[in-house]
This record gives sequence, structure tokens and C-alpha cells, in this order.
Amino acid sequence: MFSGELTDIDFQEKIGEMNADELQLFAVAVRDFLINSVAVTGGHLASNLGVVELTLALHKVFDVTKDRLIWDVGHQSYVHKILTDRAGDFKTLRSYGGISGFPKTAEHPTDVYNSGHSSSSISAAMGMAEARDKTGGDENVIAVIGDGALTGGLAFEGLQNVGTRKSKVLIILNDNQMSISKSKGSLSQHLSRLRSSQSYLLTKQKIKSNLKNLPGVGKPIYHGAEKVKKLMRNSIVSGSMFEELGLNYYGPVDGHSISTLISIFEAVKKIDGPVLLHVVTQKGKGYINAEQNPGKFHGIGSFDVETGAELGEKKATYSNVAGHIVTEIAENDRRIVAITAAMTDGVGLAGFAMKYPERFYDVGIAEGHAVTFAAGLAMGNMRPFVFVYSTFLQRAYDQIMLDVCAQNLPVVFMIDRAGVVGKDGETHHGIFDLSYLSHIPNLIIMSPSDGDELALMIRSSLAYGCPVAIRYPRGNADLSNLEKINSLMGETVGLQKFDYDNHVFEIGKSVRLLEGTDVEIRAVGSMVKTALETATFLSDSGISCSVVYDRFVKPIDEASLLEAANKNILVVTLEDNVISGGFGNEVSSFYARASLEPHLLTLGWPDEFIPHGDSEVLYLKYGLSSSAISVRIEEAFRKLNSGRERA
Amino acid sequence: MFSGELTDIDFQEKIGEMNADELQLFAVAVRDFLINSVAVTGGHLASNLGVVELTLALHKVFDVTKDRLIWDVGHQSYVHKILTDRAGDFKTLRSYGGISGFPKTAEHPTDVYNSGHSSSSISAAMGMAEARDKTGGDENVIAVIGDGALTGGLAFEGLQNVGTRKSKVLIILNDNQMSISKSKGSLSQHLSRLRSSQSYLLTKQKIKSNLKNLPGVGKPIYHGAEKVKKLMRNSIVSGSMFEELGLNYYGPVDGHSISTLISIFEAVKKIDGPVLLHVVTQKGKGYINAEQNPGKFHGIGSFDVETGAELGEKKATYSNVAGHIVTEIAENDRRIVAITAAMTDGVGLAGFAMKYPERFYDVGIAEGHAVTFAAGLAMGNMRPFVFVYSTFLQRAYDQIMLDVCAQNLPVVFMIDRAGVVGKDGETHHGIFDLSYLSHIPNLIIMSPSDGDELALMIRSSLAYGCPVAIRYPRGNADLSNLEKINSLMGETVGLQKFDYDNHVFEIGKSVRLLEGTDVEIRAVGSMVKTALETATFLSDSGISCSVVYDRFVKPIDEASLLEAANKNILVVTLEDNVISGGFGNEVSSFYARASLEPHLLTLGWPDEFIPHGDSEVLYLKYGLSSSAISVRIEEAFRKLNSGRERA
Repeated sequence: MFSGELTDIDFQEKIGEMNADELQLFAVAVRDFLINSVAVTGGHLASNLGVVELTLALHKVFDVTKDRLIWDVGHQSYVHKILTDRAGDFKTLRSYGGISGFPKTAEHPTDVYNSGHSSSSISAAMGMAEARDKTGGDENVIAVIGDGALTGGLAFEGLQNVGTRKSKVLIILNDNQMSISKSKGSLSQHLSRLRSSQSYLLTKQKIKSNLKNLPGVGKPIYHGAEKVKKLMRNSIVSGSMFEELGLNYYGPVDGHSISTLISIFEAVKKIDGPVLLHVVTQKGKGYINAEQNPGKFHGIGSFDVETGAELGEKKATYSNVAGHIVTEIAENDRRIVAITAAMTDGVGLAGFAMKYPERFYDVGIAEGHAVTFAAGLAMGNMRPFVFVYSTFLQRAYDQIMLDVCAQNLPVVFMIDRAGVVGKDGETHHGIFDLSYLSHIPNLIIMSPSDGDELALMIRSSLAYGCPVAIRYPRGNADLSNLEKINSLMGETVGLQKFDYDNHVFEIGKSVRLLEGTDVEIRAVGSMVKTALETATFLSDSGISCSVVYDRFVKPIDEASLLEAANKNILVVTLEDNVISGGFGNEVSSFYARASLEPHLLTLGWPDEFIPHGDSEVLYLKYGLSSSAISVRIEEAFRKLNSGRERA
Repeated sequence: MFSGELTDIDFQEKIGEMNADELQLFAVAVRDFLINSVAVTGGHLASNLGVVELTLALHKVFDVTKDRLIWDVGHQSYVHKILTDRAGDFKTLRSYGGISGFPKTAEHPTDVYNSGHSSSSISAAMGMAEARDKTGGDENVIAVIGDGALTGGLAFEGLQNVGTRKSKVLIILNDNQMSISKSKGSLSQHLSRLRSSQSYLLTKQKIKSNLKNLPGVGKPIYHGAEKVKKLMRNSIVSGSMFEELGLNYYGPVDGHSISTLISIFEAVKKIDGPVLLHVVTQKGKGYINAEQNPGKFHGIGSFDVETGAELGEKKATYSNVAGHIVTEIAENDRRIVAITAAMTDGVGLAGFAMKYPERFYDVGIAEGHAVTFAAGLAMGNMRPFVFVYSTFLQRAYDQIMLDVCAQNLPVVFMIDRAGVVGKDGETHHGIFDLSYLSHIPNLIIMSPSDGDELALMIRSSLAYGCPVAIRYPRGNADLSNLEKINSLMGETVGLQKFDYDNHVFEIGKSVRLLEGTDVEIRAVGSMVKTALETATFLSDSGISCSVVYDRFVKPIDEASLLEAANKNILVVTLEDNVISGGFGNEVSSFYARASLEPHLLTLGWPDEFIPHGDSEVLYLKYGLSSSAISVRIEEAFRKLNSGRERA
């Protein structure tokens, strides 16, 4: 066993020396390391446990320093990282300055593509393959894609094109029968039929004996691919969708048998065309807690290895509030339906799904469909709530604009994980949503300062009868009026019956929280709390601050902004979004349109991709903690005043 | 024959009375009307000629006032419009205030969904079907989708979900074996196999005799669907992809035989689940010029009916310049590849495709794949140019951000049809691109003032080694230094060898075109010409104008903007984009960050969807013609000066 010494090994060399049986034993050590490491740092565990043998076999057969191995969506690349000299860095996993939870080209040369959003690997691999063929290279290009990621339309576009062009790409379908939530859509049923229609599974012995009869092995045999297929498959599956699209389909094979994997990799790497190799794995494999609850161990904080219990206190999150309130109002309003894209648990919809299965739709990793489908439902007088993380909703930008907003349909976008999300990093931060939404006509955009506000916004959104976006952050929702209770389900934190009146927020109206004379901070969403802290800091420095909570990012509160401008004080906008195209930009643009020239300071994320790390650390590093903001405001205020004195 | 009287007929009634043979004759009259009408107004012709019988049969079997008929992408809805009391409006087709070239819910109650971008119909139809089932309705929901539109990932997401949920939706695949350009991708090959594997085609007689044997017809027979299938198909096609995805596949049937269509519609409408009916039609059917050149007659200006020749002088367009220059530089730079998404002719790439077939990729209607594929190519040291219309590139927003820009890859986005496009209207205007691109880190954005500038930008883009977007409008490129010649191909207008030096534009540097003392207009792209005209108008009013051409929208020319602010004059930004999130916003935001408070007026499109109409008319109506802009600037200038006098 190698446990505890993983950091000292040159794996490239070691793997070359080990035979399949030794590698199979080594897999135990890798699992042990993974479990104990992620138990401390948190991270994606179940999907990585599922690909231990797959990754070892890939490293055995392919030269990862030359061949190009693309992980889709990327959170299952931990084993690959361990095998490429990064085991020692795992204590820094996903922390600021530490190694990323996703492949990063800047981190290591064997990370060849920065993945993060799903379904991109086939298209990217095809690009690399076509580039290789044009520049005379001979490296293998391999995409490892989960069955969940395969449900995305982008993957289908990639399959079609690779099937047309016949590029030499090896696509490994890592079929663990689920994505973030359980894989939805008829595609997963197709895969299930493929699995069951074979005398499951191909074994090393069968592959070996078949290979003996195969004259072409050893040289490129694309034209002989049909032969390979017949020899290597136990039975012909009529109608594999992949074959219809022009790919060579092989499998399914047992993704936990290293000897089988090595045999089949050796065989298919010689085929000069697109291959889809169907590998069956188990998410959470080898760790009983994760096998039994792969959803919980998909992405997890630190936990107790023995019991699998997550450490740290559980509090009600914005997601809990969102799911709870929509479930509650759905009781008396049968028009309400909830839609999500493979993130039922993450967005807090497990309760809704259980209570209203007929009004709940998990459409798979298919954000575009989620939005257009919602438009169709709204056309039929339903009231759809679309729950998608901010960063993933980027995939549906066009559908939000044309299917929903251009038709002015009453769809409510429940945009979870807005702002920085912390450890998942640059591909997952939700810091662009205000920028990609604010310029879309007809859309109302709100961002709550706490959980109570979120609850009221959801109720209000129904009254507006037009497209509404509510964006709220990852993490705990401060709740003042809602009493926290533990739900019966144990796993989630629920909320008591919400007994506000049917109060509807006045569109475009901001809330003045604090009155001051020198500076007026206009804050959005979760930054309201920061603004209030900042006001306290500034008060200590003798600067008197107003704090206004701009409940509506669109439309902005023009009357209140005019008033602020007329006071001739420093106006500061504060948002958890990039400055470009965000709330501050809209404010400065409004002032320009109004021919007003107030003293304005716009604070938010800069024009760059923000790396991974604890959110608190990121706020600090980027000058968006309340103390840093205080300094920036004080500086601007002093500068302004010295200008006034000079004038 | 009904020719010439189409406007006086109550078609709902008439179609009910006509039998299949009479309808088949009537189709001739409809074609005649279509050809003669579009010859005058211009519009989409070939696709509408292809669906005359299909539309008549749909109107015969279904009640379009109750059933919901969704056209994907919508430009083939002319016949539907003729049959719903709008024949008389066809002289206003696509003109400002006239009828749209796409279905519009505001135009007529039988237009049930505003289509425009492709591949959305299945998802939208599923939404309407689910809403119907929840509200106790019994209307039919029908999506008519072309084989081109089916290549989009969104359509695949829709198919998967409709196949999973088993919603009762009739999807009519209008297989005319092409999209805007020839349909690419292995999917079209799959359809071709389906066509050829049948003893082509199902006839009315066969369907009728089969139906006699079918006990279930007349009541919902979803569980008997397998039986219908066996009876109605001449031979079982093993492995239709649609069946693998859980739909009932029927066909192919002859889309020009009304009696056949009526029979099969009557049969499939009784099936209680998702049906994909494969209908084969010919684009341009019945008009010899369009049959022979369906690409040219896809979207066409006014033309001579006899010869099919387009009227009006042909000039070199921005698309011609773009295609020409990329083809030219590809000669000496073998890294250059060109990618487009089913718009080869539209973006001017026909010449490139012919000269460098191995370096040319038409990926079908799959903008997301186009961009991610380009990222993969760039990873392999190629230099991809991605040619996509501004409005369609919205579909690839997420891929632009994460696959290309977050990895800082040297992909050049050639964004055609930026700004208003005129007659195609709200779903096609390219007035959002600066808003959805400006906030993306690492991206350089340029917009040329004329064809010469475009040529130099393309050459410059190669030198930057990072993501670059070049956005340019529809229509004629003013060319001063490039001599116009007619190309050998006759159909396109080519350009002479471009002999500029290898000049590379300095990043972020603007160009001062005119020096004045009162006002400084900062103009982007095609608005530079408008700015110069405006300056002349203002000069007549005694206002002296500077005109600066902001060649780079990102990064903006901060030094030059600072200079302008320091002059204490009125700064006016002018762009062919919505104001929100656009160039003007970036300028006002920059001034805010710099704690500068210049007098700023931001001009561009307002926060609303802009309807169809001649571009010139739209500029006029929205105050963006040079005369209207002069008035707006003069007003702001006078106001500013009266303020100064008061102060």
C-alpha cells in the first residue's frame, strides 16, 4: 500500500512499471488518499472516487505529457492531478493560491484545457484533433465526458460535427448514471438500454481473444473499424445513437477493471476516426458513505471520514429560502411550476420536487431548454420559476433575451450562486449576471439583502406579470423574521410557514437604511451588509454615510439617484458583480443621460477573471471587504474635499 | 385559379370546403402570389415555396385558431400568414409598421410564438403542451422545424426532454436537406439514410389502407402507438435517433402531396405522446429559379420574376471584405482556419470555402460548438476566425467567455450584421453585442468605420495573440483605397489584392478625424460617418465639433478621453448598440472610476426591442439619423451653456 507516501512518488515512471494487478491494488491507495484529503479540505469527492481506475488506465496507456486529455466537466480530475506530481498540493485544494478543483493549463502542462462548465470537451477535443492533423502531429486527443454532461446541447453539436468530419478523437463516456442530480432526459434511458442490451460487460479476456483475430491491430485501421466493432462487442446493439451520428461505438466496459480498460484503450487508440467508448463506473466507488449518497458527496465541505457527516453548523441558505418559499406559494397557486437544470438539491428544490412532482422539471444539463421551455409554459398561462446558478445561466443568454424577454413573458429566473462562489473559482463565480442581464429590455432585476427580502421578492415577482430575475448569493441567508427550524428531512434546513402579508415591492424603489451627510453608498444584494459595516468604519473616521439598499438593479431608482446627485455628495455604488455592465455602470450612464455630473465611485469586481479561494479571502484581496472599501471611500472623499478646498 | 384575389378570401372557411385535389390546385395560386409579392418587397422566398402544401394541409386538418402552430425558425410562415387574413398586407412585408417576416404574437392571434432564432420550437411546444395538460386543455401543439434548425443543440435538448416526459407534441421535421447554407453535420446524413432506407415515400393510398386495419384510430391510442408505427411505415428503420430518444417516428412522407399530408396528420394527431413526423420538401419548389438556387432565394431583395435576377446595383459589402481579406491572409499563414455556423454565403466565406476546403468548417446551426471548437483549434496553435452574425452569436455567450476568453486564446470573432439589420427585425438586430462582450475580460473589441478599416483590423488581429472581436454592420462597405472589381464568380463582389503594409493598429488608440472647440463626438464603427455628417450640420448652427473615431471599443482610449474631459466640453458617445452596457456606458463608467465629471451625452439604441423596417427609417424614428442627432446634441449643448451662464 502506498497510503501516506503518495506525495513522494514519480507516478509517470511507477505506472509504467506496474502491471494491471498492481495498478488495481494501487487504486486502493489513491482512494484512501482522496477520501482523507477531501475530508479535510472539502471538494468534489464522489465523481473522483468513480474514476480512479479509469484515470490509472488512461495514464498507463497514454502519454499524458504528449497526448491531450480533456476532462468534462473537470471536477473529476483529482486523480489525474495526484498522478501528475500534485498529491503534495492537495492540502491547498481550492484555497486561494492553492491548486484548483478543475484542470487549469496554468497549473500544470498536463492540464490541457480549463474546463468548468459542462459539455464542452467534444468540441474542444475536435479542435485539438483538427489542429494536430493540420500541423502533422500524432498525439492522441481524449475527451472524458460524463453521462450528465452529454445531455447538454453543446455535446450534441460536438458529436454531430466529429461524426461528420471523422476526426480522430477518443471520447470516453463515463457513464455513472447521474450528473449533479440524477441524470434526466431520454438520453440516459438510451444509455441504460445500451447497458442492459449487452451481455454486460466486456471483459479483458473477451477483448484479448477477440483481438487475436484482428489483423489490423498495430496499424491505423480506420477502414477496418467495422471489423473491430464486430469483434469487440459481445452483441450488436442496433441503433446506438452514436453510430447514427457517425461515430464508432464500443462498450459498455467495466470502468473499475483496470485490465479491461487497458486492453480496450490499446485497441481503440489505433482506430483512425471518432470513437465513443462507453465506460460504466459507480460514483463514490469504494467509500460506502459516498456510494450510498453520491449526491451529498458530489461537492462537500470537510467531513468525518468514519460517519460521512459534514462538519460545521448547518444554517439556512438562500437556496433553502428560495425553494421553501416557492414550494409554499405553489400550494395556493396552481400556475406555479419549477424548472431546474440538473441542480435540484443545489438550488433547494428537493422539497418542491417531492411535494409537486407533476409541477417539477429537472431538464438535465440543458439551460437553454430550461428557459425556452419556461417561455412555452408561460405562453400557456403557467408561472414558471427557473432555478439555475448564475454562471450556468450564461448558457441561456439568448433564450432569456428572445424567448422570454422579447415576448415579455412572466418567467421568474431564480439565479442562485450570484457573486463570488469561493472555492470553485473562475468558471463558477456568478459575477457577470448583472452585466449579461441589465441590457435586456423588459426584464426586472432584483437582488435581496437577506433571506427575508428574498422571500418577499419571490412573492412580489408574481404580481409584476413580466420577466423577473432574482439573483442571490451562495451561502447563509441572514434571517430576522423567519424562524429557523430543522426540517423533517434531516438533510436540509427548512423554514417555518411564512406569514408576511401579500406585500408587493414597488418596482424600482430603493430603501434608505441609514442617513448621513458626506457619502451615500448605494448597495446591491449581499453588499448591503458590507455597506452598513463600511458606514460604521467611516463613522469612526468622522465621515457620515447614508446607506441605500437598491433592491431593484433594474429599473434603477432614478428619483432617489437624482436626489443623491443634488446633494452634491460622494455617491458610491457597491455590487458583487464586475463593474463593467453592472449596476454602477447603469448608474453612471443614467447620470450621463440626465446631464448630471455627481461625484461617483463605482465599486465591484475588476475586469479580470477571479480565481478560486474562500470568498472572504477574495473580498479582501480585491478590496471589497468592508475595511478595504472604507479605505477606498475615505480616499475618494478626501480627494474630493481637497479639490473643493482648492476650488 | 385564385391568383390576384387572394386578399378577398376567407381562407379558414374556404380550406374547410376544399378537398385535397382542390387544395393541390390552390397551392399553385399561393405560389404565384408568393413569387410576385416577394419579387417586389424582397423577403424569404425559397423556404416558403417549400411549405405551401404543408401549410395548406396543416390548416385543413388543424384548427389554427385553437391549436398551436409554432414555426421554427419562422421565416417560412408566409403561407400561414396568407391563410390568416394577411395576404392584403404583403405589400408592407418587413417594412416599418408593416407585417413581419416572422410570426409575431402581436400581429395575429394565430401567430402563437415569436420565432427568429432557430431550434427553439420543440422546447417551446413542450412548454405549451405541459401547460395544456395542467390546465385541462385539449388543443394540439405542433412544431414545424427544418432539418437545419434540428442541428442546434437546443433542439436536441428539447427532443430529449419531450422524449422523457412523453408530452403530446407533434414535431414536423421539414426536411428540405438544407438550412441557410447546405445542412452540415452527421445528423443530415442520418436523415438522408432514413429517407433512402424507406421505399420512399408513404402515399395516401398506403396510409389509408393501413389505417383500415387500425382499431385504435378515433381515440387516444398512445399505448397502441407501436401498432400505428408498424402499420404506417413501409419498412421499419432500425435506429432512428428519434426513437432512441423516446419519440414516435413516422415517415418520411412527401411534403408536396396534400392528400398524403392530410391522411397522415389525421392519423398522428390521435397519438397521445410525442411524435416526430418526417416530411420531405423541396426548397424553392415550383419556381425554377429558386429550385436551382435555393441559397440565393433564401433571403432576397426585390428581383425580376422572369429571370430571377436581383434588382439594384451590387456593391461590395462588409461581408465581402471580411471573407476576401481572411482568404487573402490565409494564403501565407497556414494557421488560419475559418469557421461558420450555416451562413457561409451570408458572411462572405464562399471563396474561402472553395479555396481552402480543408481549413473551412461550416458546423451547422451550432454557434456554441463553433466557438468551443475554435478554442480547441487555438490550443493547437491554429488561428481560427469565427464568422457569425451578431444576433446568433448570442447563443455562444458562455463559450466566448469561458472557452476562449478565460483561456486567453487567439480566436478572432468576425461579427457580421452588427447594429440594426433592417427588415428582419427584433430577433435579428445586432444591437446587443457590445453589451454582451464588453464586460468579458481579456477580449479586444474593434468596430470598423469602413471597409478599409475592416481589412486592417483583420490583419491587426493576428498580431495581438489574444481574443479579438471585430463587429461590422450589414450592407455596403465604403471603400476608398480598395478598388472594387467584379469577381469571376459573378454572384459575389470581390476585391483586388490588398496591398497595405503589415500595419498593426495600436491597441486602444482612437483616431481624431475632426478638430472642434464646443463638442466632441466619440463614434464607434458605422456611426463614424453619421458623426461626420452631424458635425457638418452643427457647424451650420455655429457649433464647432471634434469627431473622434473610437476604433477600439475595448480597451477604450483612456488618454484621449481624459483629454476630452479636461477640455470641459460636451462629450457625446455615439454607437449602433443599445446604450445599456455599450460603449457609452463604458465611457461614463471610466470617468466615474477616474473621479472625473465631464459633460457627457450617450447616444445609441434605447432599452427596448427595435422592430423591423428599413434601417434608414429606424435611425430616423429612433433619433439616430445625423439630423436627429444634431438636434439632440444642440439641445444638450444649449442646456449646458445656459447652465454655465447661470452659474
